[in-house]
Amino acid sequence: MRTAELGVAMLGHGFMGQAHSRALAALATIEDGPRAIPRLVSICGRDRDAVESSRARWGWESASLDWREQLADDRVDVFDNVGPNSLHLEPSLAAIAAGRHVLCEKPLAGTAGEARRLWREADRAGVVHMCGFNLRFLPAVRVARELIERDELGEITHFRARFLASSALREDQRRTWRFDRAVAGSGAVADLGSHLVDLARYLAGEPVAVTAATRTFVPIRDGQAVDVDDAFAGVVELDCGALGTLEASRAAGRRGNECAFEVDGTRGSLGFDVERLNTLEVIDERKRRTRIDVTSPGDPFMALWWPAPGHAIGWGDSFVHELRHLLEAVASSGSVRPHGADFEDGYRCAAVCDAILEAARGGRRVEVRYE
Amino acid sequence: MRTAELGVAMLGHGFMGQAHSRALAALATIEDGPRAIPRLVSICGRDRDAVESSRARWGWESASLDWREQLADDRVDVFDNVGPNSLHLEPSLAAIAAGRHVLCEKPLAGTAGEARRLWREADRAGVVHMCGFNLRFLPAVRVARELIERDELGEITHFRARFLASSALREDQRRTWRFDRAVAGSGAVADLGSHLVDLARYLAGEPVAVTAATRTFVPIRDGQAVDVDDAFAGVVELDCGALGTLEASRAAGRRGNECAFEVDGTRGSLGFDVERLNTLEVIDERKRRTRIDVTSPGDPFMALWWPAPGHAIGWGDSFVHELRHLLEAVASSGSVRPHGADFEDGYRCAAVCDAILEAARGGRRVEVRYE
Amino acid sequence: MRTAELGVAMLGHGFMGQAHSRALAALATIEDGPRAIPRLVSICGRDRDAVESSRARWGWESASLDWREQLADDRVDVFDNVGPNSLHLEPSLAAIAAGRHVLCEKPLAGTAGEARRLWREADRAGVVHMCGFNLRFLPAVRVARELIERDELGEITHFRARFLASSALREDQRRTWRFDRAVAGSGAVADLGSHLVDLARYLAGEPVAVTAATRTFVPIRDGQAVDVDDAFAGVVELDCGALGTLEASRAAGRRGNECAFEVDGTRGSLGFDVERLNTLEVIDERKRRTRIDVTSPGDPFMALWWPAPGHAIGWGDSFVHELRHLLEAVASSGSVRPHGADFEDGYRCAAVCDAILEAARGGRRVEVRYE
Amino acid sequence: MRTAELGVAMLGHGFMGQAHSRALAALATIEDGPRAIPRLVSICGRDRDAVESSRARWGWESASLDWREQLADDRVDVFDNVGPNSLHLEPSLAAIAAGRHVLCEKPLAGTAGEARRLWREADRAGVVHMCGFNLRFLPAVRVARELIERDELGEITHFRARFLASSALREDQRRTWRFDRAVAGSGAVADLGSHLVDLARYLAGEPVAVTAATRTFVPIRDGQAVDVDDAFAGVVELDCGALGTLEASRAAGRRGNECAFEVDGTRGSLGFDVERLNTLEVIDERKRRTRIDVTSPGDPFMALWWPAPGHAIGWGDSFVHELRHLLEAVASSGSVRPHGADFEDGYRCAAVCDAILEAARGGRRVEVRYE
Repeated sequence: MRTAELGVAMLGHGFMGQAHSRALAALATIEDGPRAIPRLVSICGRDRDAVESSRARWGWESASLDWREQLADDRVDVFDNVGPNSLHLEPSLAAIAAGRHVLCEKPLAGTAGEARRLWREADRAGVVHMCGFNLRFLPAVRVARELIERDELGEITHFRARFLASSALREDQRRTWRFDRAVAGSGAVADLGSHLVDLARYLAGEPVAVTAATRTFVPIRDGQAVDVDDAFAGVVELDCGALGTLEASRAAGRRGNECAFEVDGTRGSLGFDVERLNTLEVIDERKRRTRIDVTSPGDPFMALWWPAPGHAIGWGDSFVHELRHLLEAVASSGSVRPHGADFEDGYRCAAVCDAILEAARGGRRVEVRYE
Repeated sequence: MRTAELGVAMLGHGFMGQAHSRALAALATIEDGPRAIPRLVSICGRDRDAVESSRARWGWESASLDWREQLADDRVDVFDNVGPNSLHLEPSLAAIAAGRHVLCEKPLAGTAGEARRLWREADRAGVVHMCGFNLRFLPAVRVARELIERDELGEITHFRARFLASSALREDQRRTWRFDRAVAGSGAVADLGSHLVDLARYLAGEPVAVTAATRTFVPIRDGQAVDVDDAFAGVVELDCGALGTLEASRAAGRRGNECAFEVDGTRGSLGFDVERLNTLEVIDERKRRTRIDVTSPGDPFMALWWPAPGHAIGWGDSFVHELRHLLEAVASSGSVRPHGADFEDGYRCAAVCDAILEAARGGRRVEVRYE
Repeated sequence: MRTAELGVAMLGHGFMGQAHSRALAALATIEDGPRAIPRLVSICGRDRDAVESSRARWGWESASLDWREQLADDRVDVFDNVGPNSLHLEPSLAAIAAGRHVLCEKPLAGTAGEARRLWREADRAGVVHMCGFNLRFLPAVRVARELIERDELGEITHFRARFLASSALREDQRRTWRFDRAVAGSGAVADLGSHLVDLARYLAGEPVAVTAATRTFVPIRDGQAVDVDDAFAGVVELDCGALGTLEASRAAGRRGNECAFEVDGTRGSLGFDVERLNTLEVIDERKRRTRIDVTSPGDPFMALWWPAPGHAIGWGDSFVHELRHLLEAVASSGSVRPHGADFEDGYRCAAVCDAILEAARGGRRVEVRYE
Repeated sequence: MRTAELGVAMLGHGFMGQAHSRALAALATIEDGPRAIPRLVSICGRDRDAVESSRARWGWESASLDWREQLADDRVDVFDNVGPNSLHLEPSLAAIAAGRHVLCEKPLAGTAGEARRLWREADRAGVVHMCGFNLRFLPAVRVARELIERDELGEITHFRARFLASSALREDQRRTWRFDRAVAGSGAVADLGSHLVDLARYLAGEPVAVTAATRTFVPIRDGQAVDVDDAFAGVVELDCGALGTLEASRAAGRRGNECAFEVDGTRGSLGFDVERLNTLEVIDERKRRTRIDVTSPGDPFMALWWPAPGHAIGWGDSFVHELRHLLEAVASSGSVRPHGADFEDGYRCAAVCDAILEAARGGRRVEVRYE
């Protein structure tokens, strides 16, 4: 009993475009219970040949060079914005205005103010809105949240998270859009740090104050000054009293994609690393470290996969879970369930990122201000 | 430039049916270079409602209750036999006779004699034939083979592999077909051990003699005697002079799906566990243990996935690689490339499994006989 | 309240001599409760300068070139035989005859018959006798035994152990006494495999039958044929019904000292590797893998060490525990407690090793015979 | 050819007293080359029975209730100060004045000013001075430094270290001296953080500025306010341009003794955790993670131990290496070699700790001031 077919239009066809497209295709062959099926209506990019190639490869019905055209298409229920950061605000606002449900990749916008505007507009319009923090949709991260909600860690005393990569140290050292403040907003803070801030909020508590420092290790690229950070490290105070450390870098040795967090409470601890995404590590009251392989059919999201335990899923599958959640939320008339990050989460994350940048610039503790 | 659309008919819709169906669906959105695209023509099972449900869920065009009907269908180029072991021989032989290319799950047949017949017939008919040893299509396993081929381990002295699960210890202790010799052929030997034998052959060398013992820990199920083994352990001598140990069990504590191997040579070692499938461990001449995360775009098969390193794939993705290999082999007029296990591999594996069972029964060393 | 000072004489001053000497010295500064203190009376070797150097370095009172002289010394209560394998039988028999308590390194003797003679004589003489299976005295191994005794694993279905080293692959390939059957008895079987057999017996059950194969990868050393095995692999059937695999090699890549075991039961599993000797891994009924760091003051033997958890001990400390156990047993008038391997254990281990060698020679299953 | 016997007097007989006493005892049986042998002259404490008990257990010749008495003893060459923090300054100054060589545990003093005075006085007096940063004497830490000195990591971009324990969360929540500022100086900053600062300086560079926050999770103990921190987290800028994070806590779940660091450079990374003290992890330019077991006879300090690789040492053995280094320095007329932390290191570390506390109090970035 399928309750709906929902038309999707996608803006962008880079890395995230690939991830979202494959996930949408996979959703057509995955079912557990009534839900919505995606229809891949159109994909949009600036270069005609490139976007047509992506269209053909990923199974979209049509290619477009203009996102306004996508929003005018009656077949489109959901606007999936996976474009570069500078294209998050205007197209998403237009999609909201056109009554489309919107998924926008992180960071939601260049500043907290812009992000807040997106949230307020989406909320006012009554559309479903989601911000693409896909890590919330990994089974191990969900189990982490469940353990904390069941108070298995006691009162949280520490949260620490890091996202260590080395993309800034590649030999070519090109000045892609990610190193251009006008397009990217900031560097490691917005690109990688936003994931960490969302994890802190999802798992431990609301940040209330931060101190931080940033670094730009490669100051010149392609003959131009780099005006964003390659790395930051910060201390964050959470409303629950916990002390947090956040660190993100694109210049961390040769690390690939090491997005990891730890939570310590008065009774135990847990840890996760996306490079071992099927696993959650827990330290219990007896100091025992348990590696929980979250690969059994009864684990979160895993009913979608295999009937026997021990069969790992991949990073890309987080998008299957995320987009399925979006479609369900839309099909259920907009009652977004608690775990999907929405635009309010995107805004609150941006407010923390702004505070981090301000603290680093000023060399002082900055309180996070939510309007 | 897509060179072909190939019609696929599938017999069976259990666990492997799910895995193959999803992989075939995924292949439609994955491309690198000219190749064949699968068309999911028909899926076959015994129960009308169940097979129709699978058809709808997994995107097959039609459902069938008769594999003979599938083989008569002109749209079918490839027969994908994922039925229970006792349905491997006859339908696969019929498919060969009908000129279809065939992928048959492991174990290829109940005895080495039957497996050899399948191989000889497929070879004579000139169709592409493949036996479903999907582990060969994991990136880390492929890298293991490449390291060995480049002689980085020196002369191989030891091969050890194990497949440890606990499905026989479930509380219900039902006598499913896997505990019935008439359907399954044997127990852990055929079901799990066949993977290990194939890995030994793929990586280290041809088995020439074996000694072994078997155990049936739960001798009565549903009031009936169990006539297959729950576990075996064996020593295998390889033609290269290496000493091997093989062990498979469905009664190993609460282990889930621990299929692991190690190869030792005169200059180094390597190790792999399917529960950490993105990783290969290597011990070099300086005794250093290196964890190689096989997740970079340049790693085997990984060009199909993500543009940045550190993004794990899942167990199910091995079938994407396997079925893509099959379709390429068919589209390229049958020149199966070396890594895909074919029916000869399935036969040779069966000969070793027969020798293991004979050695265990007789309490003596048995030489493997290939006709 | 120290109850005794016990004089020790040591035969041999190689690797084990170093380990035992340091442990004896450490015992002088370690105390918890009344016990015996060792007095390092004399150390014996064949080369006058070498043994004098060892004496001075390790704090022995006198050096000797004749173990008979040691046994005639009234100050000697305990004879610690750490000489080469061929010197285990005669001096230990003489020590027993002289009424000395005896610790003899493994393997207890060249054959089961000789080992049995040692056991029977020591038993008859009423002296304390111990065979140097030091791994029993590692905290994590002791915890493994305790877990099994408390039935936390359920009925044991599998035991597997391996001792993988690479000493036979060193470039020089000298024919030391370890490669000479006349001195060593056998190769990897006696030297490394004896540890594995003892662990099987200590943790899982008595071996009743074995099948096996051996290999000599470097057949010529120093121009002479090597008449012992470099490696063996075997399947062992235990009296409890469990299936075991044992494997030892001196030609396993570049592995250093990888002595590891696993026990699977109907309710869980555990695993240990001496290269991570402070840790025991447990898999529970929920498939969770727990790394237990056995480093808290309440853990076995750890009251001897540090007041706070997380402070690892070293391999050499196993000898501190072992020799302390010996001294306590002597001081308590010979009531050897259960965990210390005695000469009966040494004999039973030798019987299994003999069966392994016979099974490998004959290519058939051999039942272990205890007289 | 032993060159000297050096008399040692020890102040304190708690945890560190135990560790140093055992190490001194072990030094008597360890030798490689000419060096000094310790003579355990006297041990000092406040409680007559307790100190006598320690004297007897650990092999000291005499017990004392007055460290001035120890310093007046002609047999004493070296003063080993392992007393509580508040007893570091005065007795160590007196020892210097009396011409004794001094090892003082960390933190060297309650403030940077006091620590500087100790350094200046010791330097002026020409005695050998050492501050007890024992982690520098772990083989893996030494290898880490060697790799960095050989420029294998390239330019250092990140240093991060943490010392996570849970001693503040014990049920009794007693207000021991460690929770009393008058005795301890500060809490986690001085006790645990000082190790991290020393590691940063030893491996990566001099701290030039810090931001930080502290927390006291259990504000009342035994009815009294706790006036020290239970935890701190800070960002530290190093003179080499690297960005560092430091975090120490006595309230981190149930963690035991997790003192760990990581260094990232432009070409690679390395990591270490004292709970796995025999191992160093390295990430190379090809993103490969190598676990180096620093247990071969050729590794730093390991010539003191076993002739074959794979034999782990324990945490306590770091003190053997540290005290041996001290004795060698004294015997060689005071030419302290580079790796031993001296009082200047103790002072510089204290200056950073002071800056951390000031930054946390003021909510602002504080530059580290060295006089």
